[in-house]
Amino acid sequence: MEIKTYLLERQDLVEQELAALMLSASGPFVQHIEAMRYSLFSGGKRLRPILCLAAAEAVATDSETRCKALPVACALECIHTYSLIHDDLPAMDNDALRRGKPTNHTVYGEAAAILAGDGLLTYAFDLLSGSSTANLSDRARMRIIQVIARAAGPQGMVGGQSLDMIYEGKQAGYEVLRTIHQSKTGALITAAIEAGAIAAGANEEQVSCLCSYGQQVGLAFQIVDDLLDLESSTEELGKAVGKDAEVLKLTYPALFGVEGSRKMAREAVDAAQQVLNGFDTKADPLRALARYIVERKK
Amino acid sequence: MEIKTYLLERQDLVEQELAALMLSASGPFVQHIEAMRYSLFSGGKRLRPILCLAAAEAVATDSETRCKALPVACALECIHTYSLIHDDLPAMDNDALRRGKPTNHTVYGEAAAILAGDGLLTYAFDLLSGSSTANLSDRARMRIIQVIARAAGPQGMVGGQSLDMIYEGKQAGYEVLRTIHQSKTGALITAAIEAGAIAAGANEEQVSCLCSYGQQVGLAFQIVDDLLDLESSTEELGKAVGKDAEVLKLTYPALFGVEGSRKMAREAVDAAQQVLNGFDTKADPLRALARYIVERKK
Repeated sequence: MEIKTYLLERQDLVEQELAALMLSASGPFVQHIEAMRYSLFSGGKRLRPILCLAAAEAVATDSETRCKALPVACALECIHTYSLIHDDLPAMDNDALRRGKPTNHTVYGEAAAILAGDGLLTYAFDLLSGSSTANLSDRARMRIIQVIARAAGPQGMVGGQSLDMIYEGKQAGYEVLRTIHQSKTGALITAAIEAGAIAAGANEEQVSCLCSYGQQVGLAFQIVDDLLDLESSTEELGKAVGKDAEVLKLTYPALFGVEGSRKMAREAVDAAQQVLNGFDTKADPLRALARYIVERKK
Repeated sequence: MEIKTYLLERQDLVEQELAALMLSASGPFVQHIEAMRYSLFSGGKRLRPILCLAAAEAVATDSETRCKALPVACALECIHTYSLIHDDLPAMDNDALRRGKPTNHTVYGEAAAILAGDGLLTYAFDLLSGSSTANLSDRARMRIIQVIARAAGPQGMVGGQSLDMIYEGKQAGYEVLRTIHQSKTGALITAAIEAGAIAAGANEEQVSCLCSYGQQVGLAFQIVDDLLDLESSTEELGKAVGKDAEVLKLTYPALFGVEGSRKMAREAVDAAQQVLNGFDTKADPLRALARYIVERKK
């Protein structure tokens, strides 16, 4: 299967659904909604939503079932976008560029950016419990909300970002690095895959396999992210590069060297492929996505 | 019924349940969880959780049903606390004192405070979809999550805070003031009451009446908040006072004068009482709470 075509097609689906589900910039809260929309519609890779859709496709037998994962995918992108807005704030990473555009607080100011993040995070749970997911059973929706809230929360993404800030400029070993990345990046990627599988009616064994796949892919993603920060240009990535070394962030290349890190990423992707052995060709997109994640250039 | 005793007893219930449900300060994310706990356990009035419990009591026939609202009440307090942490940030209201203690960012720094707020907001949805609410039906939980996410989101509390910032120091009329307060304060208060009623199995007519009660009580609460900012001391309120006038915030006393505002608060509470006419003595706590809200000194 041609991964580039797949990515473009699924990106398109996600963009359309996000456009349909996101609040329109009008009414009394127009400025707030504009700030949310600015970062949400700024051309991200939509990797988490696409992984969510691909997981649904891997278990679903018809396109109608597959479509049930689409609003869930959008909620995940709202949460991912909120995390980028808050991470970029002056009090955090203080970044001026994101996805090739000025960061939210650069455009709207700090207060509005904090609130835009808060709004997107809250809106994700509105989507997951509202009319857009009403064709899922209440049981499935409840599990999905739990999976996503857990992954995004104090022992997942937010906790990971907090650890990342605390260890900036400090010496620490592999255990800390792994905890930071598993929580900060890995947890939401795994949750995207698990949520997509649940939305498509996967059985427990399938959910469990796909979670393992998610963990390996999340690890590979983070290692490659660290490598790209080291080896790419700002133009290529659309965000500031070389910052990890500058602020002495704990990274894979810092601990294992460039070659060692590349090897670890490849091993993680191999492990991810292995977990999918019991799946038929419907899981081909997931297989291709795992390869794409180590080979990507941005 | 003696409102002071009722408040103390319900406060106690909420404190115990919060202590049981909140993450303990240990493990890899200990600093992040400590920052969350600092603001969550800082002696708030617990008004939203208590309104949630009182709404459940107004419709529930047994104490077991009433208890189902308790974890929902705790989730509401997590959301309320997150909103206080973010509102107090230097980029927002820049407050040093809250509930008589240094604000979160004063103690833990801006980055940790932003993340503590994010963590509490996300954890609220973890609670609402996790094991603590498992004795509610999935249908009821889904409705509760929707009600709370809607009330806390871009067209509710976050949107209201955004408008409040935008209109600081600007001239505007009653319509804007009403929109700000209905969204910033009223929405979550009404949601607390609606969620409590749903948790206790209220029928649609009861839910609708209790929502009307919530709207009136929310309005009264906000008017009195504005009056207290004008008339109290920092020691009494546990937060900075007189700031509304200083930064030219839109307030009820600024638009309608002190006497006019008092009259409006009384009228709102009268309207709230009227809505409860169809309820029996189980709604007495709600009746007493409405009176307490206009008579409170902090």
